[in-house]
Amino acid sequence: MVSQYPSVVARRSDARRRAIAATSELVQEQGYAATGLEEILSRSGAPKGSFYFHFPGGKEQLVAEAVAASGDGIRQLIDAVVADAKTPQAAIRAIASFQARQLAESGFEHGCPIATVTLEVATRSDQIREAASGAYESWIAVLADALERQGHPDSVGFATFALAALEGALVLARAAMNADIVVDVGDRIASLIRQQFGQPTDPQTG
Amino acid sequence: MVSQYPSVVARRSDARRRAIAATSELVQEQGYAATGLEEILSRSGAPKGSFYFHFPGGKEQLVAEAVAASGDGIRQLIDAVVADAKTPQAAIRAIASFQARQLAESGFEHGCPIATVTLEVATRSDQIREAASGAYESWIAVLADALERQGHPDSVGFATFALAALEGALVLARAAMNADIVVDVGDRIASLIRQQFGQPTDPQTG
Repeated sequence: MVSQYPSVVARRSDARRRAIAATSELVQEQGYAATGLEEILSRSGAPKGSFYFHFPGGKEQLVAEAVAASGDGIRQLIDAVVADAKTPQAAIRAIASFQARQLAESGFEHGCPIATVTLEVATRSDQIREAASGAYESWIAVLADALERQGHPDSVGFATFALAALEGALVLARAAMNADIVVDVGDRIASLIRQQFGQPTDPQTG
Repeated sequence: MVSQYPSVVARRSDARRRAIAATSELVQEQGYAATGLEEILSRSGAPKGSFYFHFPGGKEQLVAEAVAASGDGIRQLIDAVVADAKTPQAAIRAIASFQARQLAESGFEHGCPIATVTLEVATRSDQIREAASGAYESWIAVLADALERQGHPDSVGFATFALAALEGALVLARAAMNADIVVDVGDRIASLIRQQFGQPTDPQTG
């Protein structure tokens, strides 16, 4: 029995992880209200019995954890893009291109993974709103760090502006079914950064 | 009986208008999926019996009309602000201040009236997505006209960028419960317009 303990824990936390992953996908695709527990359990393949063991706070807790997990995934992505890119402006362009591709390839289903649920429940669930706010702050922090390393005098303010523009572009792009809006907004933000730094255009990364 | 005909028509179209107004409010506050017909009828005070007479396409038709009506209301607001303001940059600032005030005064409930429903159902209802897309395009058109009258060389592109930034700011502001994000983004867009036109700062309207 003792030797089985680790595998039970592993299976339990795997069910937990699968429930969070399924919830992240579902709230990205259709939002909070349209996503029921039955659908989450069916997509994750997790047994219903263990649900309240893993998530005593029910759907609200699960969605808050899913928002935090999605936020962490995007933060890692932005981190990796920033590490790869030669300049913050190249990073912004790469992020915008990536988002535009995701949008087009998913038939305009996959925009920002947390925007829909944020707008739906920001005033109804502090737990979910705080998870969303933490995610946005963490993305802004990565962008601001990149700007600051290059000597930007107003890194957090500008990073917030850049994220706002990209988030809004994802809304307009989904309405118009036109991913070019996201690429164009990324280009404009990148140009602004270049202008602010007064650097010459780099045709490779600029 | 003949003399009663106009008042019956009036009452009918009044019930129709009230249902659309109630739906506009509800989808702004909580989105599409969370808004049920019962709640719409109860808020509008409209009789259930006439619902499918007015909206044979059911909830989808009603929400599409509500999105179009909200979109038209915002378009008229932007029109009025643009007509009052001396410059496009003053108009952008006034719109951002208005939205920030709405947000704070409603306890962060009233952001963009159509963004939540757009994100929820863009890939699920062409009828609603097209209403949202038409609304966004009409707002962009008013801003672009104002920019073009002042000789902006890229009026539609820049107006789209400005709207994206404001829309995204409303998302971040609701997550952070901080309406200053919207004011700050409006200020940045206004500064960009001023720079592009190379105009001196006007402390009154700039």
